[in-house]
Amino acid sequence: MVRHSFDKELEQLHDLMVKMAGLVEESIENSILALKRQDIDLARKVYESDDEVDELEGRIEKICINLIARQQPLAKDLRTISTALKIITDMERIADHAADIAELTIRMADMKYIKPLVDIPLMAELAKKMVIRSIDSYIKQDIDLARDVCSSDDEVDDLFSKIVLELINIMKNNPETVEQATDFMFIVKYLERIGDHATNIAEWVVFNVTGSHGHLARKTE
Amino acid sequence: MVRHSFDKELEQLHDLMVKMAGLVEESIENSILALKRQDIDLARKVYESDDEVDELEGRIEKICINLIARQQPLAKDLRTISTALKIITDMERIADHAADIAELTIRMADMKYIKPLVDIPLMAELAKKMVIRSIDSYIKQDIDLARDVCSSDDEVDDLFSKIVLELINIMKNNPETVEQATDFMFIVKYLERIGDHATNIAEWVVFNVTGSHGHLARKTE
Repeated sequence: MVRHSFDKELEQLHDLMVKMAGLVEESIENSILALKRQDIDLARKVYESDDEVDELEGRIEKICINLIARQQPLAKDLRTISTALKIITDMERIADHAADIAELTIRMADMKYIKPLVDIPLMAELAKKMVIRSIDSYIKQDIDLARDVCSSDDEVDDLFSKIVLELINIMKNNPETVEQATDFMFIVKYLERIGDHATNIAEWVVFNVTGSHGHLARKTE
Repeated sequence: MVRHSFDKELEQLHDLMVKMAGLVEESIENSILALKRQDIDLARKVYESDDEVDELEGRIEKICINLIARQQPLAKDLRTISTALKIITDMERIADHAADIAELTIRMADMKYIKPLVDIPLMAELAKKMVIRSIDSYIKQDIDLARDVCSSDDEVDDLFSKIVLELINIMKNNPETVEQATDFMFIVKYLERIGDHATNIAEWVVFNVTGSHGHLARKTE
């Protein structure tokens, strides 16, 4: 009976995490859509939904802590809840970065872009997919999917390096592009960080299932 | 008696947090020293101590979770432990950013710098002080000190804007500086983030003491 009630609470916890993941996913999508369309209203929406994500994080955190305190779960369940606590921190940072992108979008809203946006939306799409799949791997406790997420971070990193090089060349050839190129530089940095956070989430899933945390070796660029 | 053992465990927890804060503080200091001196060995040391910080974070986290599960603490104590869980996440990210700076330092180790480093070390010093004082405010449960940390983030942000503008001007006037200026741009961004994380820590302290979390309003740059 106790077990049954614990499982039910865990299920509710996971429902909230899926809800949070949905919001985060939408934020990434909208932040890039707003950037492409130079749509200030949509950028503001991303900004506002960051508060909703923060609030949800606080709620989930409280549920986790209370679940641990009241139910005194055994080792495996304890690990699952600690993992949830780590995952929501990463999700919250992802939403923060979407809001960071929205902030720069608002700043650049009345400027003509120095280049057509092709690779940046592609990078955002990849990063968003990583986030969706990392949460999916947690819910399904799917270690293969989690490992797959970790390896797709390389693609995001490659795009990051490619875009940074391109921006450097644009700046060198047209010094008047420097301000805007700098903003784009930060935007791709945020996207790269989103990929890192999705990787963190996937690594927590591996830890949760196997009990050991194999941090991917830090890459020297 | 139960209370006594709880207090003792809490004290041990706080000792480990102070140890972690010491490592993080050293990492910030060394990362900027390595940058100034173009000292690859010191930069590598920062890099390596990041693993130590990660390991310590994992240990502290386990202690927190077990403390909650075994002792079933009451509301106020539960909040103190949840706060510890949040704080170590921010500390770990700070160490990550110091390692990020070390990575760029290694990349620039054999280049002549495009400008003398004055404001960047100043910014690092301010950010480091924020980190030290934010942890201090947690240990002492000193809400005034915590609020003070939050307000000194403005100084760090001002320096960030100042340095970014300066770098933009350097790039515009000397296109050949673009690569290195971009690296410096990321370095000051990491320092700005370190200030943000110290602010987070201080905000958690305010939450812990007062029970309500007043996120500082997000600034539109």
